[in-house]
Amino acid sequence: MAEIPTATLEDLVVACKRASRQVATLSTDAKNRALRAMADALEAHEAAILEANQRDLDGAAERGLSEAMTDRLTLTPERIARMADALREVASFADPVGEMAETRRRPSGIEVGRMRVPLGVIAMIYEARPNVTSDAAGLCFKAGNAVVLRGGSEAVHSNRAVAAALHEALEGEGGDPAAVTLVPTTDREAIKDLIRMSEHLDLVIPRGGEGLIRFVDEHSRVPVIKHYKGVCHLFVDETADLDVALDLLLDGKLSRPGVCNALETLLVHEAVAADFLPRAHRELAAHDAELRGDAATRRILGESVPEATEADYEAEFLAPIIAVRVVDGLDAALDHVATYGSQHTEVIATESVAAARRWVREVDASVVLVNASSRFSDGGELGLGAEIGISTTKLHAFGPMGLEALTTQKFVVHGAGETRHAVPPRAS
Amino acid sequence: MAEIPTATLEDLVVACKRASRQVATLSTDAKNRALRAMADALEAHEAAILEANQRDLDGAAERGLSEAMTDRLTLTPERIARMADALREVASFADPVGEMAETRRRPSGIEVGRMRVPLGVIAMIYEARPNVTSDAAGLCFKAGNAVVLRGGSEAVHSNRAVAAALHEALEGEGGDPAAVTLVPTTDREAIKDLIRMSEHLDLVIPRGGEGLIRFVDEHSRVPVIKHYKGVCHLFVDETADLDVALDLLLDGKLSRPGVCNALETLLVHEAVAADFLPRAHRELAAHDAELRGDAATRRILGESVPEATEADYEAEFLAPIIAVRVVDGLDAALDHVATYGSQHTEVIATESVAAARRWVREVDASVVLVNASSRFSDGGELGLGAEIGISTTKLHAFGPMGLEALTTQKFVVHGAGETRHAVPPRAS
Repeated sequence: MAEIPTATLEDLVVACKRASRQVATLSTDAKNRALRAMADALEAHEAAILEANQRDLDGAAERGLSEAMTDRLTLTPERIARMADALREVASFADPVGEMAETRRRPSGIEVGRMRVPLGVIAMIYEARPNVTSDAAGLCFKAGNAVVLRGGSEAVHSNRAVAAALHEALEGEGGDPAAVTLVPTTDREAIKDLIRMSEHLDLVIPRGGEGLIRFVDEHSRVPVIKHYKGVCHLFVDETADLDVALDLLLDGKLSRPGVCNALETLLVHEAVAADFLPRAHRELAAHDAELRGDAATRRILGESVPEATEADYEAEFLAPIIAVRVVDGLDAALDHVATYGSQHTEVIATESVAAARRWVREVDASVVLVNASSRFSDGGELGLGAEIGISTTKLHAFGPMGLEALTTQKFVVHGAGETRHAVPPRAS
Repeated sequence: MAEIPTATLEDLVVACKRASRQVATLSTDAKNRALRAMADALEAHEAAILEANQRDLDGAAERGLSEAMTDRLTLTPERIARMADALREVASFADPVGEMAETRRRPSGIEVGRMRVPLGVIAMIYEARPNVTSDAAGLCFKAGNAVVLRGGSEAVHSNRAVAAALHEALEGEGGDPAAVTLVPTTDREAIKDLIRMSEHLDLVIPRGGEGLIRFVDEHSRVPVIKHYKGVCHLFVDETADLDVALDLLLDGKLSRPGVCNALETLLVHEAVAADFLPRAHRELAAHDAELRGDAATRRILGESVPEATEADYEAEFLAPIIAVRVVDGLDAALDHVATYGSQHTEVIATESVAAARRWVREVDASVVLVNASSRFSDGGELGLGAEIGISTTKLHAFGPMGLEALTTQKFVVHGAGETRHAVPPRAS
């Protein structure tokens, strides 16, 4: 890939910013029409997209890309149809732009409200999955933003083919194709240049491995919304319904171990450990999952259970492995979560109102759950419609981010000539 | 001043973070009692605070600090009483922490709500005014946060005396004094160390000159909320009530020219320019204010009016000077604001519903006003209670920031054992 000079990159970003003014004022109908046209265009260009994808897959084979990475890179007619359907679904979502929060009259006489408005230009930095190109474009566009897309080198042909289809649709609807700008560069120095353009960009969202995210966070001069990892806990309280607790454990650990809202550590109240742990152990073993325990756990389950180390309590296994600790009560469980948690998703199984209330109030995480699986920590499941990313920093958004997180609010004031101070007497 | 090693600085910040867990769970009553105790302590230690302030003022005289800077640095019994009253006012505000946004039942059966929670640890980096020490401490504390305060070297003794009073009050109420941590350092390298502590800090708010703010923004690894300047416009539309427009102009430009929500540029529709500009010119001249105009303005007012340069349209004068441009309509006014505005505060004077609607929708600024003075762009006037700062970036907060902007929301989920996927069949 030929690299582009910074000046050229900046020209692209400036054109995207210019387009953002147009997108911000489009009517909901116009945005929905364009989104449906983008969906149709993806399907109409299926052959070209698959051909481009094949070139990326050939390259992946040459470069010895991992099987998991290659799977994420692969497009099929079904996956393209899902990308198109995702755009149609975004068209069906309520438009957050223009929503006015309650307007109040102030003592001065002015009326003050807050109007939801787009952020402006959002840069997405991502890897592998070409569906992010259309998913992110659709969500940013619906929220009235322009988007700069910078996908990974392994997916460069696929991303270009997808973007070409989106551009054709945008132009067909009279829109500025620069509203969806794919940056034709694959090297990290160019990312660095991009994420320093704080005059033109309003937000950067990196999605990918921890290395990419740390790189973006370290070099960005633009606000970054990110999350590194999910070290999620299930605490089985002394009052827990142990059948419920077991369901939550198996769903949280086994239904999809490779995702960030999977459980990594099980905390068990000492009063129910002797009852619960053998059942949990049997179930996990029956599903080929590994359990690593502290001394109390191993006293109950036997020395054949591997010892859980400090590193195990810090780990996001992304695999069917779970660390276990027996704790002497809610305080110890809260301390463990405060020490090892990643502010992502934390679950308690309890029948005690008091314990549930303390868990909800005191656990510092973006999603706290009582008697429900950690796997519900997801934009769709929580009712956000779709998810553009997840934030474990607390600024702007905390937790799964939907359309609303791609907007902000401005103050709108109506008056009848009110002034704040006595106006100096007019001379005339 | 002896500087402190980074390790010692980090110890202080870690202790502050530890204290933040305590502050986050305090009841509203406990927080209000502590705030009132802090207010009482400021008044009880008036003599010690004034004495410390005198040492700073002596230093300021030696170092030849400007008159404006020295005024900002000066404490008096009245100013200390105002600081105490501000803390009592914060005690009277509603507590944002714990507020639950509407809870909805999802198709899966879980109930999802959003709870307002503190951010954690906020670092304030500021200059000169010792009142920021107690104002920021009070607002952060009420919102359930701990705060790291780093004031300027010119106010170091005053800030220490104020902090000592606050600590005494906190301890008297059984609180951890580390919840309000004053960093005993005055050099910029230590600021750099501080704002890289992204493991411990959740937000940095710089308040001061543009140099300080750029320095913080450039070096911070923690999210920064900031605003550089306010280049605020008044557009007098062709349908404007010219008496109202004149009131807005004089209030906006003259009531306090040195603040960020003062007007800097007047845009006048060509249809009313010949009527409005001579009146505006006469009034401004009567108050010793200077007007700088474009060619059309000078055709109406005469060549004695200085020419407005490109630099004038970009300037935040912070003085009784205003740049003027005659525009041929709303579109040209919107373009001018998009080009030269600072996304701060923008005013239209109009009697046209259509023009007002377009102004409100299309102007990209944190506060947009119709027939009301730019000087209302202020946390207190807009109904936020108090103002900890103002943001002209769109992430997290846009515009004046009150208590709510010092909090975030987490998702709270209640269930009855719901799992996301069919749980693998239990072995038992």
